[in-house]
Amino acid sequence: MSANACGAKSARNSGTPAPIATGGVPAGTASHYFADRDDLLDHTARHIHHRLTPDPAVIGALLHAPRDRALVTALMHDLLRRIDADRSGYLAMLELRLEATRRPEVRARLTATVRQELEANIAYHLDEGFPGDRETVVVLYLAMTGLLVEHLTLPDVLGPENLPALVDTLVARTVPAG
Amino acid sequence: MSANACGAKSARNSGTPAPIATGGVPAGTASHYFADRDDLLDHTARHIHHRLTPDPAVIGALLHAPRDRALVTALMHDLLRRIDADRSGYLAMLELRLEATRRPEVRARLTATVRQELEANIAYHLDEGFPGDRETVVVLYLAMTGLLVEHLTLPDVLGPENLPALVDTLVARTVPAG
Repeated sequence: MSANACGAKSARNSGTPAPIATGGVPAGTASHYFADRDDLLDHTARHIHHRLTPDPAVIGALLHAPRDRALVTALMHDLLRRIDADRSGYLAMLELRLEATRRPEVRARLTATVRQELEANIAYHLDEGFPGDRETVVVLYLAMTGLLVEHLTLPDVLGPENLPALVDTLVARTVPAG
Repeated sequence: MSANACGAKSARNSGTPAPIATGGVPAGTASHYFADRDDLLDHTARHIHHRLTPDPAVIGALLHAPRDRALVTALMHDLLRRIDADRSGYLAMLELRLEATRRPEVRARLTATVRQELEANIAYHLDEGFPGDRETVVVLYLAMTGLLVEHLTLPDVLGPENLPALVDTLVARTVPAG
């Protein structure tokens, strides 16, 4: 899985953050505001996606390295750094996931986007010759999702100081050495 | 109040974006409101915890089995079944996690609860002689968290029909055979 993998997925997954969508808006305007939510969702998703996309200057050097577990680990550290720098964006994406449980049209749009991103992650991993198979990417994606949800909502459960070693462990336990 | 009603109510309340939660409430009543919310949080957490605890009658037979990967797999399937039967409760916990990012006292309480549960899971795994080490449990916990968040918010990304095989794979990739 590339950093782009999880990052892009997260990005597309976000959208209208509930606190932003309702912040400062009198309750009476909610239904009016709702009509624009899909546009806002797309707009927000594009912005967050852009921010979560790896900076080529940062990871350019990494991508000349062999496609082994060490490179996957480095990309996961880069992903964590970018998520940390975009905490509100990732939390907005979680808000939107919850909104998807209440609004079928949000669910349909997010599902299509997230599934597409996950498939793109898998294809990238396999096409680039990273170690492992399709299931490797899915398990890594799920474990990173769990780590990010835990870290961003209740950071002291895992402990910020333990995260780098935990990312190392997580990749070591799910991705073949290559 | 039934556990289910409690969970659903909590989901609604805790999920209310801050502007709505405080909107229309005179500042002077905030501390009064807070006191009730903490009680509600405790109440909800206890109920959800109780419901997520395995039913001894259901898993009793399993627990006579050898402590190997197959048993871990069976227990993860049981967890998924219970979460599926308590969808609103798990979603309420996600709402509370987001609320924790906005209210330090909620964060402190939830952090203590979740950390305690994670440590209890680790101790149980090691004391019972299940295969793997402390990191095995943490990685399994993170991957299952990711799976549950994905499944409960955007079920068609992974596909409900694929979940049993995915749980098998997830355990196979993170827990030694034992």
